[in-house]
Amino acid sequence: MAEPKENVLMEKITSLCKRRGFIFQSSEIYGGIQGFWDYGPLGAELKRNVKELWWSTMTRMRDDVVGLEATIIMHPAIWRASGHVDTFSDPMCDCLLTKKRFRADQVEPQSGRAFHYVGACEATSLTEFLAKLDGENLPAELKLNFAELFQAFSYQERGTSRWISHDRQFSPSERASFAFETLANREACTENIKRVLAQLNAQKALGKACLDNYAVLLPKGKPTESALASARQFYLSRGITDPVVFFLGVEPLESTTRFNPENGSLLTPPVPFNLMFKTYVGPTATEADVAYLRPETAQAIFAQFKNVHETSRQKVPFGVAQMGKAFRNEVTPRNYTFRSREFEQMELEFFIKPDEAVEAVTGAVATPAGKGHPGEPQSNWGWQLWHQYWVEERIRFYEGIGLPRTTLEEYWQKPEELAHYARACVDILFKFPFGTQELEGIAARSDFDLSQHERCSGKSMGIFDEELRTAFGKLPPEKQTELKDRYYQARLKYLTKSGIPVAEAGAAAQEDADGLAKGQYIPHVIEPSAGVDRLILALLANAFSEVTETDAKGKSETRVVLKFHPRVAPIKVAVLPLLKNKPELAAKARAIFESLRVHMMAFHDESGSIGRRYARQDEVGTPFCVTVDFETFEGVKDGPQAGQKDTVTLRHRDDGRQERLPISELLPWLMARVK
Amino acid sequence: MAEPKENVLMEKITSLCKRRGFIFQSSEIYGGIQGFWDYGPLGAELKRNVKELWWSTMTRMRDDVVGLEATIIMHPAIWRASGHVDTFSDPMCDCLLTKKRFRADQVEPQSGRAFHYVGACEATSLTEFLAKLDGENLPAELKLNFAELFQAFSYQERGTSRWISHDRQFSPSERASFAFETLANREACTENIKRVLAQLNAQKALGKACLDNYAVLLPKGKPTESALASARQFYLSRGITDPVVFFLGVEPLESTTRFNPENGSLLTPPVPFNLMFKTYVGPTATEADVAYLRPETAQAIFAQFKNVHETSRQKVPFGVAQMGKAFRNEVTPRNYTFRSREFEQMELEFFIKPDEAVEAVTGAVATPAGKGHPGEPQSNWGWQLWHQYWVEERIRFYEGIGLPRTTLEEYWQKPEELAHYARACVDILFKFPFGTQELEGIAARSDFDLSQHERCSGKSMGIFDEELRTAFGKLPPEKQTELKDRYYQARLKYLTKSGIPVAEAGAAAQEDADGLAKGQYIPHVIEPSAGVDRLILALLANAFSEVTETDAKGKSETRVVLKFHPRVAPIKVAVLPLLKNKPELAAKARAIFESLRVHMMAFHDESGSIGRRYARQDEVGTPFCVTVDFETFEGVKDGPQAGQKDTVTLRHRDDGRQERLPISELLPWLMARVK
Repeated sequence: MAEPKENVLMEKITSLCKRRGFIFQSSEIYGGIQGFWDYGPLGAELKRNVKELWWSTMTRMRDDVVGLEATIIMHPAIWRASGHVDTFSDPMCDCLLTKKRFRADQVEPQSGRAFHYVGACEATSLTEFLAKLDGENLPAELKLNFAELFQAFSYQERGTSRWISHDRQFSPSERASFAFETLANREACTENIKRVLAQLNAQKALGKACLDNYAVLLPKGKPTESALASARQFYLSRGITDPVVFFLGVEPLESTTRFNPENGSLLTPPVPFNLMFKTYVGPTATEADVAYLRPETAQAIFAQFKNVHETSRQKVPFGVAQMGKAFRNEVTPRNYTFRSREFEQMELEFFIKPDEAVEAVTGAVATPAGKGHPGEPQSNWGWQLWHQYWVEERIRFYEGIGLPRTTLEEYWQKPEELAHYARACVDILFKFPFGTQELEGIAARSDFDLSQHERCSGKSMGIFDEELRTAFGKLPPEKQTELKDRYYQARLKYLTKSGIPVAEAGAAAQEDADGLAKGQYIPHVIEPSAGVDRLILALLANAFSEVTETDAKGKSETRVVLKFHPRVAPIKVAVLPLLKNKPELAAKARAIFESLRVHMMAFHDESGSIGRRYARQDEVGTPFCVTVDFETFEGVKDGPQAGQKDTVTLRHRDDGRQERLPISELLPWLMARVK
Repeated sequence: MAEPKENVLMEKITSLCKRRGFIFQSSEIYGGIQGFWDYGPLGAELKRNVKELWWSTMTRMRDDVVGLEATIIMHPAIWRASGHVDTFSDPMCDCLLTKKRFRADQVEPQSGRAFHYVGACEATSLTEFLAKLDGENLPAELKLNFAELFQAFSYQERGTSRWISHDRQFSPSERASFAFETLANREACTENIKRVLAQLNAQKALGKACLDNYAVLLPKGKPTESALASARQFYLSRGITDPVVFFLGVEPLESTTRFNPENGSLLTPPVPFNLMFKTYVGPTATEADVAYLRPETAQAIFAQFKNVHETSRQKVPFGVAQMGKAFRNEVTPRNYTFRSREFEQMELEFFIKPDEAVEAVTGAVATPAGKGHPGEPQSNWGWQLWHQYWVEERIRFYEGIGLPRTTLEEYWQKPEELAHYARACVDILFKFPFGTQELEGIAARSDFDLSQHERCSGKSMGIFDEELRTAFGKLPPEKQTELKDRYYQARLKYLTKSGIPVAEAGAAAQEDADGLAKGQYIPHVIEPSAGVDRLILALLANAFSEVTETDAKGKSETRVVLKFHPRVAPIKVAVLPLLKNKPELAAKARAIFESLRVHMMAFHDESGSIGRRYARQDEVGTPFCVTVDFETFEGVKDGPQAGQKDTVTLRHRDDGRQERLPISELLPWLMARVK
């Protein structure tokens, strides 16, 4: 998880993004807010292009997908059904000394000696207490244990020592007794000390005591005193103004993650920290008003599945697509915009028939033959082919916007990595400068999600399929039994995993299996889920390149060229008059610009040398520059187009190549490349 | 504020929106969540079209506006600077009995008699207490007051009465003494009762007392007992298990809003309830981690003003546009999607020079001559012309997407309605079925916003204008003095209104005035701020129409036609084969559909009679239907196009008119109408 201290490429990208208005730190003038990033003018265009391409690819260009735009705040029951309330959490622990919070699974393992403390009390009160140690006030039982205790724990001289501790030289045998491993009566001693401290607390006149345990890990070579100092600080913070610390013993530890790596202090036990941002809806702020900012867009699609199915005239298999903001209160947002707290998702839930329904209608479920795109969807596809289809469709999408297959990796999750309801999950990874990381996940999630919402809302999420009902009735009885049994087993697995008692689950699964025979089922789902912001970052990283040019005087300059695919480039074309002060050139350039901007994001720039203006456009990734020059009016000087008027120079960003194009051909030429 | 109980048109719109997948209630399967609405497949397209048109009109088609996309959660200091933390609130009060929360300014005024109570104590403890009343334990002073008290407040028989109250018949003179107006020693008595109750509380053995005041309003005719019952219930809820209620008097009240209209119970004093949704960012949830969901998109533009200005190569005047979600925890969300808790805004902040800077450079600020669009922006425009310009530009926008000027109203806010920093504000209103309500506000906000962020962040929000510096230096000294003085006065007003001490403000304003002479100023701003969701609702309401058709058998049917402007219509064109079972027709229709969908949202429908399919498209507002029929292959039968092949029937939604168009002309014909 550790990042390299310096990532030169990432620094260059970050700097460019700020300099040219792609990405700013959110609330920068107020020192920023960690994990939040704004898109500047060019970044906003880049993002719009990516989202528009996803949307048109996923919805407009498909017969079998429709769109949805749901709210960010939804009924909290949705997140209970989805499991987010219970399980969408990171284990967190706090430093007992500084209160600093750590992700328990990200604490770096350390080795050393752990010094354990049982509690502390006020120095003066202990003195008093010890004076009474042999006195009449102490119960006999406690008196005895207390005496043993001091014997075991290196108490120094009564009345003179401030510390009942390890700050004197111990004999080898004494030292051995400090290790828990050899301390026979550790439990008993701890209990005894606690009892003494409780007694101190009860006798209020004797001052305050603290019964909290504490420990500190000392790496090799660190002086023993620092453990004492740390413990003293801990009990000071617990309100003991002059703490006498009760020391329990030393424990050698290897690769422990229970201590703060920064100061050795013990951490609290890990507690799950839910990553959903919480808020309250309505004028009161009671527990009943709690709501969450959605941590994913997917659940709204499940919650609205029936509404969409009933109003869109779609039949399974079909999908529902949604783009939108999602929020995760990441403990450690990192890698620029890659892991932020507010981000945007593009998710498709593609609903398919359960394999048993496919088999009933088509006779057999087609088996995937090897990898690669399985072609146009067929009615005999089961979940495996649909899953493979969407993995390939999504990779084609990335290729289509300029991320070659070589920049991507497919990671097929291993069976042991999958959630219990998932049949398969493929991560599409991109080779980011800071490592190869997930761009999109394509999961085959069975009928888990809709089943959960059916169970939790009490509303049916099933659909009726006339074709299935008819086909099922015509199957031979043994085939019917076989299919029903397979469906029964699958439903039973889901229901029992959901915590429903076996007998009840059995009856419900039987009902589901009977329903299948009547054409009823809960659709399964394939979920391609992509992150917009990490895709933007991938596009930036992939497009980033530098060219070093040496001028006639031998002076060399390195400049950035962002090699965006024209489809995603924020500016598609820049229209430039060769010279600013020639009204004819300027007017023509302006007219061309006006005619193009109706159809695409165009830019008009008159200031600076033409080379400088090309360089400016290269730096923001504009694929094409159109220059109006003297030949536009006077006719092309030489070559095959010689004498032709009304042409412009068209310059290509990536190789600086220039060609002449008639103005009349400009729009279709550009449209063919930028759409 | 009261809505009509039934709004037939709104009900029809709501029903259509649900039935055809425009708008669903968020989280419907879980009973919904008040104030949150989802857009279904057609609603999502409608919304996308509206946003796309706003964005291209505001940014792509303008030289002087760039886009921004900032986060929803920003640094909380932004909302302190903007004033939202302090003042973005509704006054709320709670029913003391049921805890139900009310907007104080929406409580319906009532009249009646208010019964006031001072406190209560346990019946048994009072009995005991009274037994000791003459005894030695009571301080002499208290004893005396207590005796007076009971005299004044109709104490019945010692030891036998449960209620020191008004549940017996009072003589006319006694009754008069209950009214506050005539109760001479009201204050003293209240104080005395409180003292007695406090004494009861101190003497723990005597049981609990409650010192809270309570009151209940009885409308005319309601029996006195109900006041007692209400008071008893109140003190029961305060932990007095068998309350003896201390009654203070009756007060006649007219048009009071201090009581719960549902049960007469006193309401708590109004407390400002902030409408921002609050959450916590990061792994701890301390006060330092508080953050808000933005209640408007505008502030991000101000916070990023410098970044955008520095990276976009724009010069003032220029604007920054942003669309995005915003959140307001409305106490009473209402009117369908009009006032919801999660909504989307489209905001432009158009930064202009202060009038003094315009005057310094151009000699004089142009004065607006009458109303209407002032034409193309000029360098001598001051804020008034810019404001007028944007009002007209925005109305033109609405006209361009199908809201005629006759459906809109301009409301120029009166001087006394304006915020102290605002120079003018125009609301563009739409005649919704539930009343004429705001669609957009266009405010001239002076330099207030940037000044606030400069003051609160300590980062300069000013810009340097070389042209101004040069021009200023060439002005005659008296003109310089005049302009500096005007600028000084404006800045002084802002600074003193911000609470800065006068001397300090004077010095700062002087510095600002000196800065102006050097070409420095904080830009002023014109803010056209529109709500996406209410615009969608306006478009739906405006498009909604019904036609009643009577068939040959005399059976009449009423159906909906949504007369959307083609630019916003979710589906632009439906391509239909006349008959489904003619492969030739079907294949041709499919081919036309495929060629069109690349360019626009198209729909392909084969099922049902052609009339039925037309009606389906009318209901969702598809402006054009293209039908492939036999004449497509056999040639047009008659008319001027007779014999021509490869034509289709093009049907217009609004009047059912049909014409024949060559397939080759279809795309440009449609593009000219839908873009």
